[in-house]
Amino acid sequence: MPIYATKLTQGLISVKLKEGKVYSGSRSRIVTAGVQVPLGKFKFEFFHVCHSIPDSVGIIIYTPVGTVVHSGDFKLDYTPVDAHPTDLSRLSQLGAQGVLLLLSDSTYAELPGYTPSERVVGETLDRIMSNAPGRVIVTTFSSLLARIQQVIDSAAKYQRKVFIVGRSMNDTVKMALELGYLNAPTGVLGRLEESRGLPHNRVVFITTGSQGEPTSALVRMANQDHSQVHVQRGDTVVLSATPIPGNEALVNRTLDTLFKRGAQVMYDKLAQVHVHGHASQEELKLLLNLVKPRYFMPVHGEYRHLSLHAKLAEAVGIPRSNIFIMQDGDVLELNASSAKIGGKITSGNVYVDGLSVGDVGNVVLHDRKLLSRDGIAVVVIAVNKETGLLVGRPDIVSRGFVDNKEARTLIEQSRDFLARALDHQNKLTDWPVVTSRVKDLLSNFYYEKTRRKPIIIPVLINV
Amino acid sequence: MPIYATKLTQGLISVKLKEGKVYSGSRSRIVTAGVQVPLGKFKFEFFHVCHSIPDSVGIIIYTPVGTVVHSGDFKLDYTPVDAHPTDLSRLSQLGAQGVLLLLSDSTYAELPGYTPSERVVGETLDRIMSNAPGRVIVTTFSSLLARIQQVIDSAAKYQRKVFIVGRSMNDTVKMALELGYLNAPTGVLGRLEESRGLPHNRVVFITTGSQGEPTSALVRMANQDHSQVHVQRGDTVVLSATPIPGNEALVNRTLDTLFKRGAQVMYDKLAQVHVHGHASQEELKLLLNLVKPRYFMPVHGEYRHLSLHAKLAEAVGIPRSNIFIMQDGDVLELNASSAKIGGKITSGNVYVDGLSVGDVGNVVLHDRKLLSRDGIAVVVIAVNKETGLLVGRPDIVSRGFVDNKEARTLIEQSRDFLARALDHQNKLTDWPVVTSRVKDLLSNFYYEKTRRKPIIIPVLINV
Repeated sequence: MPIYATKLTQGLISVKLKEGKVYSGSRSRIVTAGVQVPLGKFKFEFFHVCHSIPDSVGIIIYTPVGTVVHSGDFKLDYTPVDAHPTDLSRLSQLGAQGVLLLLSDSTYAELPGYTPSERVVGETLDRIMSNAPGRVIVTTFSSLLARIQQVIDSAAKYQRKVFIVGRSMNDTVKMALELGYLNAPTGVLGRLEESRGLPHNRVVFITTGSQGEPTSALVRMANQDHSQVHVQRGDTVVLSATPIPGNEALVNRTLDTLFKRGAQVMYDKLAQVHVHGHASQEELKLLLNLVKPRYFMPVHGEYRHLSLHAKLAEAVGIPRSNIFIMQDGDVLELNASSAKIGGKITSGNVYVDGLSVGDVGNVVLHDRKLLSRDGIAVVVIAVNKETGLLVGRPDIVSRGFVDNKEARTLIEQSRDFLARALDHQNKLTDWPVVTSRVKDLLSNFYYEKTRRKPIIIPVLINV
Repeated sequence: MPIYATKLTQGLISVKLKEGKVYSGSRSRIVTAGVQVPLGKFKFEFFHVCHSIPDSVGIIIYTPVGTVVHSGDFKLDYTPVDAHPTDLSRLSQLGAQGVLLLLSDSTYAELPGYTPSERVVGETLDRIMSNAPGRVIVTTFSSLLARIQQVIDSAAKYQRKVFIVGRSMNDTVKMALELGYLNAPTGVLGRLEESRGLPHNRVVFITTGSQGEPTSALVRMANQDHSQVHVQRGDTVVLSATPIPGNEALVNRTLDTLFKRGAQVMYDKLAQVHVHGHASQEELKLLLNLVKPRYFMPVHGEYRHLSLHAKLAEAVGIPRSNIFIMQDGDVLELNASSAKIGGKITSGNVYVDGLSVGDVGNVVLHDRKLLSRDGIAVVVIAVNKETGLLVGRPDIVSRGFVDNKEARTLIEQSRDFLARALDHQNKLTDWPVVTSRVKDLLSNFYYEKTRRKPIIIPVLINV
């Protein structure tokens, strides 16, 4: 499939493909804001929006039944780092002409007021760069190029040299410099080896690890595990990002490690070292007012965000019946004068397990869960095929149940116990019955001795 | 061991012991603020502090080498719900007499300024109770009795009747009413069954589940899984608590479910429905200034909180060398004129697995991890004891590896493959060699076919 993207987006994609060693057979097309691309019955036009990543665009889709506007990720930063604010005039033109459907970014629909400008972080960075007694280590996402630009600018202002640590950060910065989305005054960026020769108050590192990822450069630097940079007393570490929900525990652990190293740590609770890239409630209402769509669909974010965004749309006058909160897979059918949810397409997670894609069985997953809880014990029972009687003592092998060395006595006891129990039965010929009896006997025996319930697998063989 | 506690704390302990069906053989002693208890060479005195739980006290320990003050969990709420603020005058008296060591609550040392008064939540609750078109469901911790009191007061003010849902909430409320720590005007509290007969705008439920615990009453009410109350459109749900770090995902999932039910949901991001019970930076500094300890130890909270609290102590004039950031197990040795960290005692998690306490083996845990990843395959190989040759085809049993029904072919193929491979070996007499060879053969066979690596356990038996 061809991929249409702005120049920087294409750069970011190519870095990711290179990282994943994926050959891109795709035909790439570069688009810019203002350009129109006809595709089948539709025509696509792109308009500039502000976001933490420069060169972001929303999409206008001209369809035979009306115009659809998709905001993409956006905020209304009037003083963005790249001096290129969201194209409100194009949006208000569209609003005047009539828009059938607006899809708009709900990620921060919980927050009242306006999202602060990216510039605010620049001011905090300036304060940090001028006051920090030693090295400054800034960690953020490699795609947040506006943030990286501000770190470079602030470092240059305070005669510090900037060193990029980590491959993905390096690849992205190199690409963005080449494409002109990052600008560094001559001599500000250095090769990591040079950092050692400089006084600490002349050094800035930019790296990833803002989510506490255990293999990230920041975490390795904090754990004194990195080949070139170790966090130490006198360093100032700036976490210029907020934890993505679910990452809180990893981030907190990283913060604690940094504090233990004696570093000064700046993070969201202590200073404005991060602003996010999504519109808050007043901005969302402004967009709705400019675009004046007949139908509205909140997109991005969890159900609660969509639901709150829908309430905002109601508040600015869109009838509740014209607002569609969609769940994954829902299809919205539109024509010039009506809209309705029509059917569902397949969507959701596809589980990959080895070579299996999508067909990982529930039985398998259930068994793995049981195995991880109390382990497994396999009993091999040899039965004389002529007499139907037990031959010797049953063999028992276990994994993840008890320590096989320490619990040798337990295993031996259970073999004796089973041998005695089965000897009373004259014939072991009805195998389903024997199997189930062995399971019960052994399961109870082990539960009584250990209060654990390993999976018991009897294997009967004729000898 | 005897337990010394205030009356309400004893009540809370007894509810927990009853829940856990634990017989308390302990000798309980009720203490009150102002009382002194001599114990060996030490004397203990208790002083009142404000916290989300009424009847909280800090501890003064008179020792032969000087006075030690432990704040416990506290905040400086000047308008607490029980009209009983933190006893600052006792603390300043102590400060004037000389305090050797202060241990103080660091939980919220990240937050600048003052923690808002619990009253603030009362104002939010009043707005909610008066405006909500239908039932109001408030969820919080059962120990937050000040919060529960405010819900009851607010409900009474707006002619709503209060129903307690869930056993632990019921037990705690009953105990607190009996001991006089909760007060409900006559007729405000009702039995859950009565709630059905009332108009929705006359009903308030109080329940647990603020952390999204899957078995809590709130989550079951949201999932239409509760025997008596189901959340529905028109309900207003108030999450009067913030997620404990680590619980964010569960709480978010619960929020989404509540929104899907059409409920109006009030939570920390949308309204001030919770204030926490711990002092912020200005309060911590005030305590340090009043108590004027020679030595200081920040307690409670993670390392970063202790570290930031230590910085506050430095800022109010305590020399860095007199501040001790302790890690679990560290021992602080004090005498009248010096303090040092002296040694370490055993501390940390004790793992319990069935009847094993503390001696859960690493091998066992490691095996369970492997088992949970790709499962297990057990191969039973019968060897003729006279000839040393393979008898029949090996038997293979697996769990958690592949679906035994769907992958029957794979298992059969692997049996054939192994039978052929072992037939080439004339004698299967050197069992360690055979075992290791079978493991390699089968592991490679399965990996090639499935890209999974189950644990392979060969069992050899002589027949």
